[in-house]
Amino acid sequence: MSERDVGFPMQPPHPMVWEGVLRSSFLEDLGLAGDLTTDAIVPIGAHMTATVGLRKAGVIAGLNVAERAFMMYDPAIVFEHLGKDGDVAPAGAVLAQVTGPARSLLTAERTALNLLARLSGIATVTASVLELIAGTKAAVVCTRKTTPGLRALEKYAVRVGGGSNHRFGLDDAVLVKDNHLAVAGSVTEAVRRVRARVGHLVKVEVEVDNLQQLKELLGLGVDAVLLDNMAPDLLADAVSMVGGRMITEASGGITP
Amino acid sequence: MSERDVGFPMQPPHPMVWEGVLRSSFLEDLGLAGDLTTDAIVPIGAHMTATVGLRKAGVIAGLNVAERAFMMYDPAIVFEHLGKDGDVAPAGAVLAQVTGPARSLLTAERTALNLLARLSGIATVTASVLELIAGTKAAVVCTRKTTPGLRALEKYAVRVGGGSNHRFGLDDAVLVKDNHLAVAGSVTEAVRRVRARVGHLVKVEVEVDNLQQLKELLGLGVDAVLLDNMAPDLLADAVSMVGGRMITEASGGITP
Amino acid sequence: MSERDVGFPMQPPHPMVWEGVLRSSFLEDLGLAGDLTTDAIVPIGAHMTATVGLRKAGVIAGLNVAERAFMMYDPAIVFEHLGKDGDVAPAGAVLAQVTGPARSLLTAERTALNLLARLSGIATVTASVLELIAGTKAAVVCTRKTTPGLRALEKYAVRVGGGSNHRFGLDDAVLVKDNHLAVAGSVTEAVRRVRARVGHLVKVEVEVDNLQQLKELLGLGVDAVLLDNMAPDLLADAVSMVGGRMITEASGGITP
Amino acid sequence: MSERDVGFPMQPPHPMVWEGVLRSSFLEDLGLAGDLTTDAIVPIGAHMTATVGLRKAGVIAGLNVAERAFMMYDPAIVFEHLGKDGDVAPAGAVLAQVTGPARSLLTAERTALNLLARLSGIATVTASVLELIAGTKAAVVCTRKTTPGLRALEKYAVRVGGGSNHRFGLDDAVLVKDNHLAVAGSVTEAVRRVRARVGHLVKVEVEVDNLQQLKELLGLGVDAVLLDNMAPDLLADAVSMVGGRMITEASGGITP
Amino acid sequence: MSERDVGFPMQPPHPMVWEGVLRSSFLEDLGLAGDLTTDAIVPIGAHMTATVGLRKAGVIAGLNVAERAFMMYDPAIVFEHLGKDGDVAPAGAVLAQVTGPARSLLTAERTALNLLARLSGIATVTASVLELIAGTKAAVVCTRKTTPGLRALEKYAVRVGGGSNHRFGLDDAVLVKDNHLAVAGSVTEAVRRVRARVGHLVKVEVEVDNLQQLKELLGLGVDAVLLDNMAPDLLADAVSMVGGRMITEASGGITP
Amino acid sequence: MSERDVGFPMQPPHPMVWEGVLRSSFLEDLGLAGDLTTDAIVPIGAHMTATVGLRKAGVIAGLNVAERAFMMYDPAIVFEHLGKDGDVAPAGAVLAQVTGPARSLLTAERTALNLLARLSGIATVTASVLELIAGTKAAVVCTRKTTPGLRALEKYAVRVGGGSNHRFGLDDAVLVKDNHLAVAGSVTEAVRRVRARVGHLVKVEVEVDNLQQLKELLGLGVDAVLLDNMAPDLLADAVSMVGGRMITEASGGITP
Repeated sequence: MSERDVGFPMQPPHPMVWEGVLRSSFLEDLGLAGDLTTDAIVPIGAHMTATVGLRKAGVIAGLNVAERAFMMYDPAIVFEHLGKDGDVAPAGAVLAQVTGPARSLLTAERTALNLLARLSGIATVTASVLELIAGTKAAVVCTRKTTPGLRALEKYAVRVGGGSNHRFGLDDAVLVKDNHLAVAGSVTEAVRRVRARVGHLVKVEVEVDNLQQLKELLGLGVDAVLLDNMAPDLLADAVSMVGGRMITEASGGITP
Repeated sequence: MSERDVGFPMQPPHPMVWEGVLRSSFLEDLGLAGDLTTDAIVPIGAHMTATVGLRKAGVIAGLNVAERAFMMYDPAIVFEHLGKDGDVAPAGAVLAQVTGPARSLLTAERTALNLLARLSGIATVTASVLELIAGTKAAVVCTRKTTPGLRALEKYAVRVGGGSNHRFGLDDAVLVKDNHLAVAGSVTEAVRRVRARVGHLVKVEVEVDNLQQLKELLGLGVDAVLLDNMAPDLLADAVSMVGGRMITEASGGITP
Repeated sequence: MSERDVGFPMQPPHPMVWEGVLRSSFLEDLGLAGDLTTDAIVPIGAHMTATVGLRKAGVIAGLNVAERAFMMYDPAIVFEHLGKDGDVAPAGAVLAQVTGPARSLLTAERTALNLLARLSGIATVTASVLELIAGTKAAVVCTRKTTPGLRALEKYAVRVGGGSNHRFGLDDAVLVKDNHLAVAGSVTEAVRRVRARVGHLVKVEVEVDNLQQLKELLGLGVDAVLLDNMAPDLLADAVSMVGGRMITEASGGITP
Repeated sequence: MSERDVGFPMQPPHPMVWEGVLRSSFLEDLGLAGDLTTDAIVPIGAHMTATVGLRKAGVIAGLNVAERAFMMYDPAIVFEHLGKDGDVAPAGAVLAQVTGPARSLLTAERTALNLLARLSGIATVTASVLELIAGTKAAVVCTRKTTPGLRALEKYAVRVGGGSNHRFGLDDAVLVKDNHLAVAGSVTEAVRRVRARVGHLVKVEVEVDNLQQLKELLGLGVDAVLLDNMAPDLLADAVSMVGGRMITEASGGITP
Repeated sequence: MSERDVGFPMQPPHPMVWEGVLRSSFLEDLGLAGDLTTDAIVPIGAHMTATVGLRKAGVIAGLNVAERAFMMYDPAIVFEHLGKDGDVAPAGAVLAQVTGPARSLLTAERTALNLLARLSGIATVTASVLELIAGTKAAVVCTRKTTPGLRALEKYAVRVGGGSNHRFGLDDAVLVKDNHLAVAGSVTEAVRRVRARVGHLVKVEVEVDNLQQLKELLGLGVDAVLLDNMAPDLLADAVSMVGGRMITEASGGITP
Repeated sequence: MSERDVGFPMQPPHPMVWEGVLRSSFLEDLGLAGDLTTDAIVPIGAHMTATVGLRKAGVIAGLNVAERAFMMYDPAIVFEHLGKDGDVAPAGAVLAQVTGPARSLLTAERTALNLLARLSGIATVTASVLELIAGTKAAVVCTRKTTPGLRALEKYAVRVGGGSNHRFGLDDAVLVKDNHLAVAGSVTEAVRRVRARVGHLVKVEVEVDNLQQLKELLGLGVDAVLLDNMAPDLLADAVSMVGGRMITEASGGITP
């Protein structure tokens, strides 16, 4: 079940969170001298209309982000939506029509569409992985290995593709990993320390790589377990040992 | 021929240019509450040593960037280089050893190594494409389709992999594309307008997609031509028509 | 049980998170002309030593923050800690000794000690409220009504005083309030929508103000309930109805 | 006499000065994931109207600031003023009506009203202190012990409450304190150094704590004296010794 | 030939590039307390109209920048253009009429017109130097000795005055100077190293100060030579030795 | 009398106030690609020593600023001071010796010395104007027409040259000008409004352009009067009418 299952259109994070990245992206491209080619060739008064199309079939993500990018560069640009985030569109689909000063359209195009392409790519891959597990009760969940500065948008693209978000950062849930266990000495001691530190509105997950650790963990009342790098057989044993008493996640050695 | 051919080690851009991205990368990961897990489990005084290894064989890029990331998070961390940018390293190679406060190492690790992995990936792909054209006089050149905020570093990674940099932005060279030609009306008029606008220290390149355009361009004294989306035969004709009078580039429909 | 119960000293959030506030605090005080008085009267070479004392007895919080403030203004200042965060100190206690260029000490003093006073005040109040409920199983938890820009530090001060942190922001846990319930139409529908949107590592809390709502909520498996503005009798009934099946919080009409 | 005595409505400082604080306040609250609860439950198209009321009677300050906060979050919000800064309003008074997208109202509410509450609180306390000295020629003046980042707004709130502003920073007037006197060796030498350094558009005040210092100061032509920590009798003697030749201020040991 | 020769009006760089400077310029002038004088004397509702005039005859540059400054301070201000960048205007000419809230006009005036005056001054000087060389094939070219933060605008003003832009930074063209030659050992080796490093879209210029160096350079195929500090006779010899094979620049000892 | 008269060396404002400008100055010059020439030619390990000399005799200002610029670019650079701010130095004087990595010195040089040259120029002009009025009781005072972002440093340079600072911004003193008088209706009413608004630590100056205005002003007890655009005779009459009861300033029509 996802946002769209309750009938809500997908909405990207508030622009405050990502407009800084957008701005530095433009500044990278403009430098001090700006778009030498366009400024030399295209008259100031010229207007044009362009369409934003899709090269390969996929799930669309980031139309509002692209619109905002065009508007940030020139508020006189009009961005008409011909699709929406979450749409599964065929190759060649026209997603938007952009009208405005020709100079602005030509200069801003790369920066605006770059993000649309990146986010749609993430949504498309997510959706294709989800298809592989259709019919199971499994979910696809994203990690923290995101692009610097783009985490909020990339996490959003995963949701657009039908995936779920794992932690957004080190700050919104506890994930005890092997290094932490080594320092604490045992699963029990690690969880005890976590209880002493984090508030009651924070979920706790522990990563284990064998059944002994898992057994120890079962009595501790945490919210989730990450079964790391387990062979399929072992994984099945682990899941059955948990018996639904907490959420189980698997990572490592899993490919489409 | 590249920087390394004159015996210079590869050096990333000045940190001023990219430390802002590094900082927002950390802030994304820390949020307001910081690393809940590590802060709960790892004692403040604990120290540890970790190695930075390579999963798959490839070309290393970004060791100084990773070092800077660790230092930015905690100046007490010592980052010992066991390799250097441009090294071709086998899977499992140890690139660096990092020593310092255990809390800092565990918290900063993902952010620091994220960039190293991304840049090494770019360098490795660049090198592998270069291998395919070894023995020819061709070069591999990178576009402006970079990650927002990371253009300087990604352009650097291309050079580490043996590739060359095309424009860094819209501001450092002229590239007249089909849209510009449509506005100007002809190749000749487009180049005339460019001459009126840009200084004499800016190179001028024009994109053409047929031989008529190319012929018109030949007499105009520009520095380079981009032969766009031409079939191999047409491409060969075009290159021979140019006859070395300007630099020729090809794009579109080219894959490894 | 708190961080100190596992023997860890209290450590404020990473300076990256709050040094921006510190910097604007200095810039507010310096303006363009700087400290007119000190620059006019105190010779550049003059050194001095000053002590940081406590006016009223209380719990100390923010010594590292104060140290960082002095160092940000002038790295030549030496800040010697004579106490540590979490200490319960009597009026007149000396918490630190600061030595360095007299100009720097006199100019930076207000900004550096301002934050120490604010954080210690929060820790002290928290501790005094905790004393009132000593012997019960209740905890004291802080809201989001913090000072703009200082949330991370103020949440830390609450922990130093022995309190617990509730949500750090709108992003790290779900709290369904009356307005949300009104939109959703029922507790059940609100929780259903939340399940469709948030990842499995996010805790869910619902605010209710009567027993019918509470009853409906009990079967939905959320993590916590906020009993809002209930009279003591009603509150007792509610807690007993929950019977430990989820965490219960109370707010409204509660004063020391 | 105050701004309102010349018939001017109170106007907060230019938003450029404080919109940065507002922005970081929102970013603190949104994190990367935004308002999980509202985004899950409230449909995108839903609109609502809410009123901004006053819990306890007091002086209003910051209505424009609250309006700006709502608008910064979502320009589609309409903020109708039903009162104005400086109004003395009874408990329950409705100060504004806010209409717009329900998601935006629910998410932005805390941040927007936080500042209104803080500034009104300052104005209210200032007014209540002023009442205590009504009928005298004394004024109430605020110090530099303000919240980091909020000095301009808090100084404004003091004026709204009828108080006066002392220095805004170390840069806009000279205040020679005991530490400065100790370095200079005497009141006379301190003032001599100040004259050599500061421009003729800067006022000079000196803090003294006994009558000898005051006597020495009287001949030096400074603009104001701060009588620090003097007992009432001594204070009366001091004021009479000054005889109106400069402005007299008292601090220390004064409570409502 | 310049932008205006192809009939294009002059357009300053995109505001993204310079609005940061504009903002800090306002913040410098406002401080925390704002415009004390205007806020005290001018009623909030008062409106006024003012004209922007020219003291001394000259070339106008920066009208859009001034307009943007007024709008940034108060979007209610209307800036009516009565001239345009590149106009040669007599003393006393009226360049614009500004209408709006009197407080805003009086407070923003200095900051807005400061930049207009600075840029027009640069354009005017450039034009006057160009007049001295009218009829020759020489051009006037600007260096990197610009005001911190204003390079993009000052380079623009040079173009408005009819001059050409040399490098915008160290990054958009190669200029080998005497220090570089000393390190490389010879002109030939310096150029060889440059070829190994820079992409094919970067122009290369070398500074020489005698004919031997020039002779060595002639065979290396660089794009331009800077003849530094040569006496007129030597300069003539050098230009004739080059014979149009590359662009020649002269610097040092040249005054109007 | 100036800072140096009490034996204090001149010290620029705290770097916090101006390091932002320094940083953007470097970023302007580096772009994304950095110093193409130096990076291509100069080996990484190469070191060099350079001297900072003075072209024309003058007053030195900004040595600490230049040092900070070099250090900001590369902390491995050592900047040895061979002079100090306020020194009157002959043409050819060596002010500093800079040693460090050759790449860093060559790349940072222009940015670092740019500011030194600008500030020394201001100090030198100030000193030369002061020489013209030597023996009188007049002082030279600077306006707010400063370079965006550099006000604090340029005001400092004026003091180094022996001049005095007028207002640093609109916020630190009142200056009632003709536009304000027109709005208020009279000098008396303008001053009355000012008294109602500004604190008692703010000085008040009024600009007048005839003796009637001056006469009206004399009874109002303000701190200073600006006699604007008065012919020498009128100016003399005005000064004598004031008779030392407030500070007199003159502006307009005054040239070296």
